[in-house]
Amino acid sequence: MDLDRLLATLRDVVGAAHVVTDPSVTEGQVVDWSGRFRGATPAVVRPADTPQVAAVVAACNEARQTVVAQGGNTGLVGGGVPLHGELLVDLRRLDALAPVDRRAGQVTAQAGVTIGALQAHARAAGWAYGIDLGARDSATVGGTIATNAGGVHVVRYGPTRRQVVGIEAVLADGRIISRLEGLEKDNTGDDLAGLVCGSEGTLAIVTAARLRLVPLPPNAATALLAFDAVDDALDAVGELRRSLDSLQAVELFFADGLDLVCEQLALPSPFDAPHTAFVLVEVAVANDPVGLLASACARLGGVADTVVADDTRRRHLLWRYREGHPEAINRLGAPHKLDVTLPASAMGEFVATVGARVADVAPHARTWLFGHAADGNLHVNLTGLDPDDETADDAVLRFVADLRGSISAEHGIGTAKRRWLPLVRSPAEIETMRAIKRALDPRGILNPHVLFPSVAATSTPADAAGG
Amino acid sequence: MDLDRLLATLRDVVGAAHVVTDPSVTEGQVVDWSGRFRGATPAVVRPADTPQVAAVVAACNEARQTVVAQGGNTGLVGGGVPLHGELLVDLRRLDALAPVDRRAGQVTAQAGVTIGALQAHARAAGWAYGIDLGARDSATVGGTIATNAGGVHVVRYGPTRRQVVGIEAVLADGRIISRLEGLEKDNTGDDLAGLVCGSEGTLAIVTAARLRLVPLPPNAATALLAFDAVDDALDAVGELRRSLDSLQAVELFFADGLDLVCEQLALPSPFDAPHTAFVLVEVAVANDPVGLLASACARLGGVADTVVADDTRRRHLLWRYREGHPEAINRLGAPHKLDVTLPASAMGEFVATVGARVADVAPHARTWLFGHAADGNLHVNLTGLDPDDETADDAVLRFVADLRGSISAEHGIGTAKRRWLPLVRSPAEIETMRAIKRALDPRGILNPHVLFPSVAATSTPADAAGG
Repeated sequence: MDLDRLLATLRDVVGAAHVVTDPSVTEGQVVDWSGRFRGATPAVVRPADTPQVAAVVAACNEARQTVVAQGGNTGLVGGGVPLHGELLVDLRRLDALAPVDRRAGQVTAQAGVTIGALQAHARAAGWAYGIDLGARDSATVGGTIATNAGGVHVVRYGPTRRQVVGIEAVLADGRIISRLEGLEKDNTGDDLAGLVCGSEGTLAIVTAARLRLVPLPPNAATALLAFDAVDDALDAVGELRRSLDSLQAVELFFADGLDLVCEQLALPSPFDAPHTAFVLVEVAVANDPVGLLASACARLGGVADTVVADDTRRRHLLWRYREGHPEAINRLGAPHKLDVTLPASAMGEFVATVGARVADVAPHARTWLFGHAADGNLHVNLTGLDPDDETADDAVLRFVADLRGSISAEHGIGTAKRRWLPLVRSPAEIETMRAIKRALDPRGILNPHVLFPSVAATSTPADAAGG
Repeated sequence: MDLDRLLATLRDVVGAAHVVTDPSVTEGQVVDWSGRFRGATPAVVRPADTPQVAAVVAACNEARQTVVAQGGNTGLVGGGVPLHGELLVDLRRLDALAPVDRRAGQVTAQAGVTIGALQAHARAAGWAYGIDLGARDSATVGGTIATNAGGVHVVRYGPTRRQVVGIEAVLADGRIISRLEGLEKDNTGDDLAGLVCGSEGTLAIVTAARLRLVPLPPNAATALLAFDAVDDALDAVGELRRSLDSLQAVELFFADGLDLVCEQLALPSPFDAPHTAFVLVEVAVANDPVGLLASACARLGGVADTVVADDTRRRHLLWRYREGHPEAINRLGAPHKLDVTLPASAMGEFVATVGARVADVAPHARTWLFGHAADGNLHVNLTGLDPDDETADDAVLRFVADLRGSISAEHGIGTAKRRWLPLVRSPAEIETMRAIKRALDPRGILNPHVLFPSVAATSTPADAAGG
């Protein structure tokens, strides 16, 4: 089947108005959020419902046309844009939200619903959704499942995979699998929903999900703790996790980052004296969150100074010191952004020496660290580098791998991190993932150019038409 | 390779003392906990470490000898015993427990560690493990991962899959995959640990796991709520989940079960008047659990009577009414035990009519219901039936499937539930699971006779030797 015949079939399925081939119209969808990854597509197809998605995928499988699914296009690793002539399946018309199931504490959402819309819908019924992230008003249910998105509340509720009770998805040959009944316990074979979650669109296209909701967080209190030794800060993180089961966040940053934030954003310094490392901790409980937090902090060793806040204004100021990091760093020039996880036992060594490792290969670079301490997740921002020079990135990711960490905590592998995957996943693991990919997508049509370090390009009708 | 040659190879790997072929010695390991499933094995092999497990599996794969792994042998569905001549790999010598990682709040445990030993180990370091179940002193880490065991605290901490940060496992060809670094966030491809969890030994043999620990539960309070309408009880379950984020348990039982428990176990009735449905709810928080629980209960509709307890003695008595159900029912004769999940929206219809459905096909049977209400998980016990007559079981499971529920909430499919799997998993799902099975275990040596509704028996050296 050539491309023209395929497009005619797709027009029959979704209607001519929803098969868009004009590059000036699809322009915004072929480049990713970062602007770094830009491709081209034979067509953007906009199905209206799951049967249409299934028919589109079946036709593409028949024609051996590769496809990439797209939601809000907020990914950061070039995983959701057509870089090799894939057909783009835009899922944003699948935006239905069922009423909240109040007995189950769950909701069914189609793939194109934004996280912001989902949050508002849950809140209106007296519930919350456990995932929150900066891109909430663009990022979609489907995209956050495909990438297993995390965000600021992972310490409390886990990543997206833990919110998913079940999914509806289209397989590579167009068959639909559907488990949207909301069965919290269901030991009837493989957890296909969990497998699809985080597989970056390589195994199936998610069209809807049954999602777990959580209680609206009750009264919150926030503390900023200052330490003069990084080891004391890391011990404190572990002890806070052990002693508080109502942690909403445990964040970590350092003296140079705090100084930069205060200077760039014109904020008062939170402490009278300089300190080395800072832990921002937040709890949410019905009764006396300040008392609970204060007594937990009082049991910690090595705390040099503390500020505790329970009113919204002062809590927001404490969060500004942490959340101001990206903005303050951006003012130095667009940084290289790495997002890594370290084993708890290796975090101290990483923090102490990563700056020197970067300086070894990039003497003009500066290294900024901040992140989600309770998850071992650090954002590594590098400034003073050419945009395309990956020498320092490579040094950091190799150091992370030497310490047995993860080269991608939240963002995924996509296109950007493919070449480093073998540093952290063994040949047996990569071959197992490839075997699963082949089993579920024998023709290799589903987002075949992400995740794996090298895959022979699948020829597509678009390529054929172009050549 | 014939069986004698394989056994000689295995003796070289694990030592002759750890290849046991005498049926009088292996007797206890070829029959499952329920006594219902009994088989035979050419040998029980007891490896001492992961490389030995890998060498054993590699040799079996080479010889096309099927294997079943076994931990504490506490399964209830005939999933961990050699019913078709499988070689039995006993993992209980892999019983090492690493020190608790206090910064990470995690621990690495080998597959043969019992849940009880793991709990004690965590407690000694000031932490808890999120899974608890009656078989804790026999059930092992490996077995509970293979079956995704649940237990009483799923509402708070989730099932076993949610405790697993990473696994070490042996693939069908003897290769080892290992991710024991404890990376809470790690978006670098497929979640192989989550896939193996709950796959009943069909995809890999787990040899160790990195497990998340939780804070020791703080002060607890327990309430027993009486309702005169089942619908009010079900609404209350949803509202308790919405309003309390410190729920440790939400259990459900009914008037006939409570009466039986009080009569058989000689307990005083908890309420002065008779009521229809009962919800047992427990919270654990640092500050004022009784106040928190009482105010949440006061907001519920339809509560006919309430008992609240915060001292250990009275809390245990309230729990006796729920936990006494199996014992009281057993005194009527060994029941058929089914373990199902209903969608929240179908729970009311199921509770109202399942007894009549059973009576239609088995007029002398009685139907008892109790379970974990917050998870939609009901234990259905049937008394007054012949042990081998599955007519009533079939009627219940078909009713569950009609209501879009799960025929196995916690116990798994194993051998016992295979024939009902197509009621609840679609052909596309079952074929997807089979494709994954073939991809990871092309020769079909790993526990090939469980889970799937019908698989052609793989011939084994034992069969050949016997025939």
